[in-house]
Amino acid sequence: MNGTVKQTNGASRSIPVAPTGSRRDLARRLFDTLAEIGGAGIGTTRPSYSALETQAMEVIADTARKAGLTVGYDPAANLTIDLVGSDPDAAAVWAGSHLDSVPQGGNFDGTAGVIAALLAQLRLKEEGITPRRTVRTIALRGEESPWFGQCYLGSMAILGKLTADDLARTHRTDGRTLAEHMTDLGIESDRLTAQQPIVAPSEVAAFFELHIEQGPVLVARKLPVGVVTGIRGNLRHQKIVCRGEAGHSGAVPRWLRKDAVLAVADLLSTMDEHWAALMERGLDLVVTAGIVQTNPDEHAMTRIPGECSFSIDFRSQSAETLQAFHHLLYSEARRIGRDRGVVFDFGPSSYSEPAILDKTLGDRLLAQAKALSIPAEAMPSGAGHDASAFANAGIPAAMVFVRNRNGSHNPDEDMDLDDFMLAGDVMYAAIAETAQKD
Amino acid sequence: MNGTVKQTNGASRSIPVAPTGSRRDLARRLFDTLAEIGGAGIGTTRPSYSALETQAMEVIADTARKAGLTVGYDPAANLTIDLVGSDPDAAAVWAGSHLDSVPQGGNFDGTAGVIAALLAQLRLKEEGITPRRTVRTIALRGEESPWFGQCYLGSMAILGKLTADDLARTHRTDGRTLAEHMTDLGIESDRLTAQQPIVAPSEVAAFFELHIEQGPVLVARKLPVGVVTGIRGNLRHQKIVCRGEAGHSGAVPRWLRKDAVLAVADLLSTMDEHWAALMERGLDLVVTAGIVQTNPDEHAMTRIPGECSFSIDFRSQSAETLQAFHHLLYSEARRIGRDRGVVFDFGPSSYSEPAILDKTLGDRLLAQAKALSIPAEAMPSGAGHDASAFANAGIPAAMVFVRNRNGSHNPDEDMDLDDFMLAGDVMYAAIAETAQKD
Repeated sequence: MNGTVKQTNGASRSIPVAPTGSRRDLARRLFDTLAEIGGAGIGTTRPSYSALETQAMEVIADTARKAGLTVGYDPAANLTIDLVGSDPDAAAVWAGSHLDSVPQGGNFDGTAGVIAALLAQLRLKEEGITPRRTVRTIALRGEESPWFGQCYLGSMAILGKLTADDLARTHRTDGRTLAEHMTDLGIESDRLTAQQPIVAPSEVAAFFELHIEQGPVLVARKLPVGVVTGIRGNLRHQKIVCRGEAGHSGAVPRWLRKDAVLAVADLLSTMDEHWAALMERGLDLVVTAGIVQTNPDEHAMTRIPGECSFSIDFRSQSAETLQAFHHLLYSEARRIGRDRGVVFDFGPSSYSEPAILDKTLGDRLLAQAKALSIPAEAMPSGAGHDASAFANAGIPAAMVFVRNRNGSHNPDEDMDLDDFMLAGDVMYAAIAETAQKD
Repeated sequence: MNGTVKQTNGASRSIPVAPTGSRRDLARRLFDTLAEIGGAGIGTTRPSYSALETQAMEVIADTARKAGLTVGYDPAANLTIDLVGSDPDAAAVWAGSHLDSVPQGGNFDGTAGVIAALLAQLRLKEEGITPRRTVRTIALRGEESPWFGQCYLGSMAILGKLTADDLARTHRTDGRTLAEHMTDLGIESDRLTAQQPIVAPSEVAAFFELHIEQGPVLVARKLPVGVVTGIRGNLRHQKIVCRGEAGHSGAVPRWLRKDAVLAVADLLSTMDEHWAALMERGLDLVVTAGIVQTNPDEHAMTRIPGECSFSIDFRSQSAETLQAFHHLLYSEARRIGRDRGVVFDFGPSSYSEPAILDKTLGDRLLAQAKALSIPAEAMPSGAGHDASAFANAGIPAAMVFVRNRNGSHNPDEDMDLDDFMLAGDVMYAAIAETAQKD
């Protein structure tokens, strides 16, 4: 793409942010500017592979160009900003995140990681450091799944993992394919389907991603910074149906009942106890039954429930834990089915592999935090991130979490700029150290 | 009403059933004939205080008149059939049930009790017995609640418990009041509102009701006949809402969750354990959570459920057990709320008093069954019956259950005529004994 990307209507507006003043001040101006791009409605709505996404990239690119960094777009129109190292043939150190958002999302999910990476490059320059390895900021496209029903599209394009099926996915609002949206941006999508990686994994020494925490752990622990040990995989059943036998709520005695609700309550309580026991053994796990429903066509207060359905989503950093918990779920359901005269119909399950982040890089982040007297703690990520795509491709990956109130994917994301700067200092130190290493 | 009731359009058809042949044959012909009245659609639909209900009464009345019994209608248009005793001033022995049905009900709920009572009178005549006490068959109206939203209307009218509010209740389909429907039948409803009983409780020595079992106990126990010890009362909450806190299903660790579904599962499983423990102590109780639902406006597979609502209906023959279980429910909900960071909003509850049936009459039924070598067992009734209205008015009441498959209030009610005759024999013997007693 030779460092340019097609600008489409609405995306031609230029919002320059000069790389002047303190880094904190620059960060504030960049966040404020990005908030305007896709910020016309409630929160931020910046679709994957849209002109608004390009416009956000151009804000970052413009600042980087003015600071004398090398700016370009890769063949999948991801933005690359390079601080070229003294050994340009050595595998590079990458840092970044994405610039799209969910519909009505917040201003920090994704953007924080791109701005922090750029600030790290600017600081290397300011401090007169030319690292051995090239340090690249990567601003990825298409991380959020609501637009095309698939996450990590930009990362997958880089890693040669985008399929023809992915390119044929249609947009949630206009129904046009991902390939068509890519063409709008000047991407030759047919070259991406060859499944040739844009960058070989061996060319990337490390991938760093700073991101707001999407849960409440750092707020609860009163810590500004977390270092992510792994990104949880998940195992899900969208709809498990328990079938027993309906009957008169007054006229059927306990021993003749096949009550679907009490069977589901028994199963969920039993799995909750197993979860607590596994936690005590130090295993990583979260379990959620987000949807529970008796059958509205036949349920009544005075009728023994003959049917009750529920969803289950459990996540862990360990594939073994996920499989073990799945087996436990099946075997407890069999036992409860036998005891209570009900049947559990599990339907299909879906599985997403956990990603183990690089322990060396994680320890480096923790050591740098300690050296800087910045309180930080190791923790898993429950939500998925681009870093998991890089990690699963064999690239050493690491993540820094920033304390954030109110979760993510909503307009109320709430990250303090002070916390962002502390997390950025930790990532900077680890990038600088990694970029010098053999 | 001087033994007549106004016939309205559609009810003028006469279906005579002569009191000839064996009692078993007569019973069969009466059931078959009643099945035609309100049997035009699916199952039997014979509304409370309708011309169809009157037509069913006239089938019974016609057979009784031909057999030389004294037939009339009380001021609330309930059908009365008397075999006058040798001491007409002695309190009478009543037996009967109702002739209305739920929409799309079966052919045995109610009718079995009226036919069995008539057969008992015919047998007394056949055997040349003139009992000391008058024996009355009572065919009641308005037992089923779907039509006017209130059950036992005919019994309540007899017992002087019908209120002006009851008379103002509107019909489920035509919206006209109960008072208007009564006027159609020639009932002077304003006289009923004076709350003067039609019959003083002291004038009734005993009330016997034969009824199909509405649960599966007799089928499961392979018994044709049950003797009812009491009619369960109930305590209900239509909608209990558990409120916790929604969140990302992957990003919030166990210790920071306020999961409404796991809290409800915990509460229901805990109450299920209490139920089992109370059963082991010999207490009578059934517990049903017929409706359970997460909030469809916000639930998702990948969202910690912030809200889950459920209904609860528990029934017992003992008011103490109902109160104790209610207290347990509140205290366990408080404990679980505290442990799990959720709040249970119970909303209003409704309560219906249990009815204790007369132990002397119950023991008499069991003794007569034993003498006749008819297998029978004492059991509670989970559903409500006219007998509970009589019992709660201080009249000694007893019930005989007949084995029945498929429950009641549906077209598939399934009672064998042989079982009906065995239960009728037991009731006959107890009526004959009671009618001779001082």
